Amino acid sequence: MSDARPIGLFDSGIGGLTVLKALSAELPNENYIYFGDTARAPYGNKSSGSVTQYAEQTTRFLLRQNVKALIVACNTVSAVAMARIEELAGDIPVFEVISPLVEDVSAFLKGREHARIGVLATRRTVASRQYPEAIARRAGETIQVEQIACPLFVNLVEEGIWHDQLAEAAVDHYLSVWRQNTPDAVLLGCTHYPLLKPLIEAYLPQATVLESGPALSRVVAEALARSDMRHEDTGGSRIFYCTDALDTFVDAAVSFLGEAATNTTQIHLKDIECI
Amino acid sequence: MSDARPIGLFDSGIGGLTVLKALSAELPNENYIYFGDTARAPYGNKSSGSVTQYAEQTTRFLLRQNVKALIVACNTVSAVAMARIEELAGDIPVFEVISPLVEDVSAFLKGREHARIGVLATRRTVASRQYPEAIARRAGETIQVEQIACPLFVNLVEEGIWHDQLAEAAVDHYLSVWRQNTPDAVLLGCTHYPLLKPLIEAYLPQATVLESGPALSRVVAEALARSDMRHEDTGGSRIFYCTDALDTFVDAAVSFLGEAATNTTQIHLKDIECI
Repeated sequence: MSDARPIGLFDSGIGGLTVLKALSAELPNENYIYFGDTARAPYGNKSSGSVTQYAEQTTRFLLRQNVKALIVACNTVSAVAMARIEELAGDIPVFEVISPLVEDVSAFLKGREHARIGVLATRRTVASRQYPEAIARRAGETIQVEQIACPLFVNLVEEGIWHDQLAEAAVDHYLSVWRQNTPDAVLLGCTHYPLLKPLIEAYLPQATVLESGPALSRVVAEALARSDMRHEDTGGSRIFYCTDALDTFVDAAVSFLGEAATNTTQIHLKDIECI
Repeated sequence: MSDARPIGLFDSGIGGLTVLKALSAELPNENYIYFGDTARAPYGNKSSGSVTQYAEQTTRFLLRQNVKALIVACNTVSAVAMARIEELAGDIPVFEVISPLVEDVSAFLKGREHARIGVLATRRTVASRQYPEAIARRAGETIQVEQIACPLFVNLVEEGIWHDQLAEAAVDHYLSVWRQNTPDAVLLGCTHYPLLKPLIEAYLPQATVLESGPALSRVVAEALARSDMRHEDTGGSRIFYCTDALDTFVDAAVSFLGEAATNTTQIHLKDIECI
C-alpha cells in the first residue's frame, strides 16, 4: 500500500524549511504541505500562551488538508504546545524536533556518563527546560547540560546574515563563555540555526554541532514505514502556505531550501483565527 | 475647558514608548493609553496588508476607549496605514510620526537648497518612500535623501543590546557606507532607534541625528491647544495594553520609558481580531 496523503509541517516562519529540506532528502516521494506563520513570526520571545494559540490554529488548518502526519518544525512550538497539538490531532501522528535531536546526543555519547552538552535555542525554548529534562531522561542525570538563549540568531538568519562580521559578532556575543571551555556537543535547538552552523563550528572547533533536521527525518521515515504509511510511488510535491505576503517568504526560502519555493499561497490570519 | 479624555498611542511593541516618554514630558497632565501589539511584533518586515490589518484592529480598540486623539507611534504603520486609520477615526484627530520629523529636518535646513539627508528605518518604511517624498514636498526636490533599511536595529533594541560590541557591529554593518561620506542630518525613522542614538552619533560624528518623539510632542501639544482639548488639571495617568504576556513588556518598558510601566493589561488577540 502507498499512502499519498500529504505530510504537514509548520513553523513560525521560514526556519522549518531546514527541516523540510532534510525530510525531502530522506523521503523524496512524499507530498508535503508547509505552513509558515510569517505574519506573526518570530515566536521565540513570545509567551507560551500566544505560541500555543498560534499552534492550535495552524494544526486545525493542516488537519483540514487531510495530512497523514504532522511535523512541528519549530523548537519553540515543540517546547510549549505539544500536549495541545496532540489532543487536536487525535489519531494523526505528530512529530516534534526535540526528541530526535536528544536521540542523536545519546548516540553521540555512546553510553558515556560524563559529558557537557550545550544547547542553543530561543528564549522560550530555554525557559521550557525541555532539552535538559529530555537529555537527563535519555542519557542520565550526570550529563551536564548548559543552555544559552540566542534570540538574535533568528533575526540574523531571516535577514540572510550568516557569514559576515555581524554574524560573527553575534556568535561571539552569545557563545564567548564557551570559547575557552567548550562543551563536547552543541545542539542547534532552533530550526533557523543550521544556517549559522559553519560559523558556530568555526568558533567552537572542539565541539560536535548537531541539528535536528536529519535526526527528525530518520524518525519520521521509520515511523511511516512501521505503519505502512509511506508514499512509495514516484512524485513528491510541495505546497507552501504563509500568513504574510508571499514575496518575502519566496525570497528567503531559496537559501533555506536550496531551491525555489513554488506553489505558494497566502492564508489570511482571519481565515485561521476566527473559526 | 479641560478635556480629560485619554490620548491613545500604539506601536507594534515597545518602540513607541520612546514617543510616550517624550509626550509625557511635553504634556504631563494628559491621560495616556498605550497599546503595544507584542504578540505580532515586529511589524517592520511585514507586508503593508498585514500591518494595515493590525492597525485597523488596534484603532478600533482605542476608539472604544473614548480617546480624544490617536497617535501612531510606529513609523511602519505611519508609512502604510494612515488612510485607513483616519477613515476609521472620523472626527478624532490622528497624528503620525513621519511629518513632525520632516518638519524638524526643514527647520534644520533653514532654507538651504542643497543638503544630504539620511533616513534609517524598517524595510517596510523604506519601501513606502514616505520620507523622501515628504522631504521633497517640504524642503524641495534638490535635497538629496538616502535611505538605509536597518531591520536588525529593532531586534537589538528589543533585546536591550544598544551599547556593546554587537550593537557597534550592527551600526557598522548598516552605516559603513556613510562613514566616509556622512549626510548632514540622519533621521531615526523608527521609534525603536532612539535607544541606539548615542552609538549612531559616535559612529557618524559629523551628522545631526534627529528623532521623532520631541518633534511629534510639540505638534500634538500645539494641536490640542488650538482645539482647546488639553487636559489642564493636574494628574496624568498611563494605562498600558499589550497583546502578548505582560512580563516581557514590563521588563523591557523600563529602559524605554525611564520608569516602570504599571497599570498593564494583556488583551488577547481574539478580542481584537474577531469582532
